[in-house]
Amino acid sequence: MQRKDTWLLPEGISEVLPEQAAHLEKLRRKLLDTFACWGYQLVIPPFVDFLHSLLIGSGHDLDLQTFKLTDQLSGEMLGVRADMTPQVARIDAHHFQHDGPTRLCYAGTVLHTLGDPLEKSRSPMQIGAELYGHAGLESDYEVIQLMLEMLAISGLQNVHLDLGHVGIYRALAEHAGLNSQQEAELFDVLQRKARTELAELLAEFEIDARYKDIFNALPKLNGGRDILDRAKALLTGFAGADQIARALADLSGISDKLRRDYPALTVSFDLAELRGYHYHTGMVFAAFVPALGKEIARGGRYDNIGEVFGRARAATGFSADLKVLAGMFKVDDEAAQVVFAPFAEDADLREAVRDLRAQGVAVIQHLPEQQGGPEHLGCNAILEKHNQQWVVRSISCR
Amino acid sequence: MQRKDTWLLPEGISEVLPEQAAHLEKLRRKLLDTFACWGYQLVIPPFVDFLHSLLIGSGHDLDLQTFKLTDQLSGEMLGVRADMTPQVARIDAHHFQHDGPTRLCYAGTVLHTLGDPLEKSRSPMQIGAELYGHAGLESDYEVIQLMLEMLAISGLQNVHLDLGHVGIYRALAEHAGLNSQQEAELFDVLQRKARTELAELLAEFEIDARYKDIFNALPKLNGGRDILDRAKALLTGFAGADQIARALADLSGISDKLRRDYPALTVSFDLAELRGYHYHTGMVFAAFVPALGKEIARGGRYDNIGEVFGRARAATGFSADLKVLAGMFKVDDEAAQVVFAPFAEDADLREAVRDLRAQGVAVIQHLPEQQGGPEHLGCNAILEKHNQQWVVRSISCR
Repeated sequence: MQRKDTWLLPEGISEVLPEQAAHLEKLRRKLLDTFACWGYQLVIPPFVDFLHSLLIGSGHDLDLQTFKLTDQLSGEMLGVRADMTPQVARIDAHHFQHDGPTRLCYAGTVLHTLGDPLEKSRSPMQIGAELYGHAGLESDYEVIQLMLEMLAISGLQNVHLDLGHVGIYRALAEHAGLNSQQEAELFDVLQRKARTELAELLAEFEIDARYKDIFNALPKLNGGRDILDRAKALLTGFAGADQIARALADLSGISDKLRRDYPALTVSFDLAELRGYHYHTGMVFAAFVPALGKEIARGGRYDNIGEVFGRARAATGFSADLKVLAGMFKVDDEAAQVVFAPFAEDADLREAVRDLRAQGVAVIQHLPEQQGGPEHLGCNAILEKHNQQWVVRSISCR
Repeated sequence: MQRKDTWLLPEGISEVLPEQAAHLEKLRRKLLDTFACWGYQLVIPPFVDFLHSLLIGSGHDLDLQTFKLTDQLSGEMLGVRADMTPQVARIDAHHFQHDGPTRLCYAGTVLHTLGDPLEKSRSPMQIGAELYGHAGLESDYEVIQLMLEMLAISGLQNVHLDLGHVGIYRALAEHAGLNSQQEAELFDVLQRKARTELAELLAEFEIDARYKDIFNALPKLNGGRDILDRAKALLTGFAGADQIARALADLSGISDKLRRDYPALTVSFDLAELRGYHYHTGMVFAAFVPALGKEIARGGRYDNIGEVFGRARAATGFSADLKVLAGMFKVDDEAAQVVFAPFAEDADLREAVRDLRAQGVAVIQHLPEQQGGPEHLGCNAILEKHNQQWVVRSISCR
């Protein structure tokens, strides 16, 4: 089928051209090297997987965002990954038999059927790190620090961090006696921060009025550190209060550490922030920068999702879209030398070209009768014969 | 849906675990850096594309190997790329308006619905380089050299190169007066090297008996350099002979250069080798190593496939499966230092950890109450306090 618009790409699907690709690759390497310096080992999960392996946790939205395929070999349903975290959790659950911590990182394309209304892309390049096998505050803090390090390397300034705790909502839902259908509906409404709908939905539920008041109050529990005290006062003296008190203590513990180690970072709290969290169970966090309308990185604790893969493990991690990070990443690339080599049947020339390339210098070979010269190929130097020697001479280029 | 076998992967789909992933990433960087030193710029084509953009050329087999998806946004058919070359050709055709050469390279996962009967993988990681805008022998030779460089970097020894020329078949088919259906059927039979079927098929065609004899003789035209002389004698004195003579002259020209520059390389010729070539038009080549039952890299000329994207361009290139290359890639990794840092609320410790990581040393932070010690985390050194100073001490590990 030949069409006029064969060069068109599907909406929200993009190709990365040379200049951006070099930039993206540079940031990719810097970040993976940094993750390695923190002990996070690279894994490469497959691009497609059995659908049931990809859709773990409560995420109906993840299901909707996942492209489905029929496997012609097995007849089973496959999905194109819309999120790499479940795959990495499976690798931890299945391949690491020790009980100690496992640190893994990854970078790869994911696809979304519909994309996010806030952003046009349906093919983000997800980069992230996950820490398994430790349930304490220290692992939450380690991944938050690594996420901040990633943003610093990407050159982002004025980062703002939003902290929340999905465990507060989960504890309230459990102790209020919501069934799983009700919990999912309420989660959805809270995710969308639809306050009128929230009141209407709660009115339908046959639960203790005190829980209704608390659920109605949740969306207002956002702001500075004093929110934690207000929440403590509000969420006390009923079943589930212990769990919630621990969650609040964890938030204030992380907040203390952040204040000590990152005095310039602004931090806020949002106890009803559930947007984008599918399988999370504990502390969650999202980073914002003024230049971007939405969060630039997010993560949190999702203990025990590995259970569906045969082993329940504590887990926390974060991820971001490498394409978005690269778009904000500024580097002063000193212009690397790109040498134009003439074409000649000359053994010395071949050797000179080989030597330069072995030193990491880019050398572009002239091809007989080619259109365009060195300047069209982005060369800023040429290889030329001078006193029987092949030497590199810089040329000016705009 | 919970199942016992949630950790299973679809047949032929694999995940890459830490040790192999680090190895693969190291080779990936070396190869992309080498491509850059030859002037080949990285591009990142999208993982899915409109189906009609992916299926160019005559490749019915490519169609069969392509996973199809319905785009929920546009209702159009998408395909998961089974080959990145058509996408790279589109980038050249659409984004580079100059007539000079364009050199592009890429590395990324492709998916095959069925896989190759010879190999189990349905998710190779395709790495390759393409040179557009030059129709001469020199560009064929440049990409062959770069392919050999890739194999040398991957540490492969005893490489064998097979040279062919799809143009010989195409010229014969054209001048024999085969229609496109017949040409495709004959191409298929020749690809499969099914000699009895070949004779039967030719018997059905109403074409000049001389052409039948030549088509029947084609599969025997393989062996050493003397094949070129035998072919020259056989394929002479009829319509199309000029084109074929040029093709044979090109093969012998490349053969001369290879003999001069790669005296240890064994080269053979196969004038009916069409297996795996979908959209090729000219000189084709495949590299073999003794350890592997099939070719490890392949490529060739495919002029004018960019036409469907709006601009016909001369084109040649090669690709390989990075996973296969990495499997054969041997490096003497000197064991890098991995330092275990104790957990302590100590500003000096935090600074020591930060400094080590900034130097590129991997430091794994102990987490309070974690299971397992330094040796379980693969550490070969620990950070400890000595005379009020945090110092790194090597520890032995098996």
